[in-house]
Amino acid sequence: MKLLRYGPAGLELPGALDAQGNIRDLSLLVPDFTPEWMAPEKLAALAAVDLQRMPLVDKGVRLGAPVAGTRQFVAIGLNYRKHAEESGHEIPKEPVVFTKAITSISGPNDDVLLPEGSVAGDWEVELGFVMGRSASKVSVADALGYVAGYCLANDVSERDWQIKRNGQWGKGKSFPSFGPIGPWLVTADELPDPQTIPVELKVNGVVKQSSNTNDMIFSVAEIVSYLSQFMTLLPGDLVITGTPAGVGLGMKPPQHLQRGDVMTLSAGPLGSQTQQVR
Amino acid sequence: MKLLRYGPAGLELPGALDAQGNIRDLSLLVPDFTPEWMAPEKLAALAAVDLQRMPLVDKGVRLGAPVAGTRQFVAIGLNYRKHAEESGHEIPKEPVVFTKAITSISGPNDDVLLPEGSVAGDWEVELGFVMGRSASKVSVADALGYVAGYCLANDVSERDWQIKRNGQWGKGKSFPSFGPIGPWLVTADELPDPQTIPVELKVNGVVKQSSNTNDMIFSVAEIVSYLSQFMTLLPGDLVITGTPAGVGLGMKPPQHLQRGDVMTLSAGPLGSQTQQVR
Repeated sequence: MKLLRYGPAGLELPGALDAQGNIRDLSLLVPDFTPEWMAPEKLAALAAVDLQRMPLVDKGVRLGAPVAGTRQFVAIGLNYRKHAEESGHEIPKEPVVFTKAITSISGPNDDVLLPEGSVAGDWEVELGFVMGRSASKVSVADALGYVAGYCLANDVSERDWQIKRNGQWGKGKSFPSFGPIGPWLVTADELPDPQTIPVELKVNGVVKQSSNTNDMIFSVAEIVSYLSQFMTLLPGDLVITGTPAGVGLGMKPPQHLQRGDVMTLSAGPLGSQTQQVR
Repeated sequence: MKLLRYGPAGLELPGALDAQGNIRDLSLLVPDFTPEWMAPEKLAALAAVDLQRMPLVDKGVRLGAPVAGTRQFVAIGLNYRKHAEESGHEIPKEPVVFTKAITSISGPNDDVLLPEGSVAGDWEVELGFVMGRSASKVSVADALGYVAGYCLANDVSERDWQIKRNGQWGKGKSFPSFGPIGPWLVTADELPDPQTIPVELKVNGVVKQSSNTNDMIFSVAEIVSYLSQFMTLLPGDLVITGTPAGVGLGMKPPQHLQRGDVMTLSAGPLGSQTQQVR
């Protein structure tokens, strides 16, 4: 299924995309896509619902992030070779891990709000995934069984806050609106191999990033297993898996987001996003 | 009030310490100390309860962390001059910020579980605080009004995972049991100035850290204001404010936690903790 949440920010209702690409309401069955709804058995039960018999939702509606109540938002850095190189870092021997504030999570097409005085905003198209079950010390072989589904994400970054404001990247990654997620969550049963997804990002119509998740250094399975060695991942937790080459920071000279810019992201079956920078 | 949670891990009930130092049950009035119960007006209403009339709880009961449902666990690094020096870092010009997984949170006297093969476990006594209200772009002058209360914390760290495992400190700070919090939360009305608290940590009875929060580089008010510039702090969020000199990493040669070691922490009105290392 392609699960989504629609409606005004903070008041979203759960829904799903049907085979014709229409939004169907699921709020009569599901209060919201909270962490407990990410359990594989709950998702399997939901998949038994005939979406054609559920209420049709207006196409023009706003979408929120497809999951509610996320408790941990974890990000992987430098997970594509060329991006590590353009960032001036070595190819990592094990995943680089940082976090984004959960309050940075926003809808896929919501405006991105640069903080006052910001001159170093940047884009990062990424494959994201949502945990379906608690994971602690999981093997690589078992790891994908803990994933509820996959989604598109923009890891919006303020490079001055990330790099020049005294260590640890989270500062430049956590501003409200710096985590557009969606438009929908493709449940794992529909995407058995997450390392096959084209990812692309344009700014004002110009392609800046174009790659495929088959180029990731550490796969989704390896990331789940790795993270679960030193922390417990919870249902509903969101993990984004790193961005390919082509970020503004890597350009010579560096390019940064300007107010009025439009970012367009796409990732095959995971859909597309459009954000205006303000 | 001194709010606490007692009972087996995962099944804690809310309570409070009365004037005689006895634990009183509050579960007939409060389901749990979830984020919404950290609101100043809710805490003020709770303070009207005559604890002498609430059920007495057995003194030997296990204590959990005093707050439930924490969504963000933020930590400040290098916030005491001598600790920055012993760690080989410059005195920070603005707060160093990192995060711990919320699943690292544990009771004040629970065992600390070193990960398999760990040889670089370390201790860090810290003043912690819990947010009472959402905070975004708060001034230093207003900041303390957003704090629900204060608690003692041990920012247990695995230095190899923190420093040698490819960047970003969270890895070495997030293992389950690496966040003992409590024994109780002293509500902010009882502690108008959080920069007056003695903090001490012993390992096997030997004093390793002894300082006072009046020696912090960035005060609680400055930390709240600073964090709120780049992220939204939520009610129930937990922030720990940095550790004074005397961690194992700073010793010459470095000292590390051994299985069987006992850590004892104290912080005046915030109470004390004892953890066995396993």
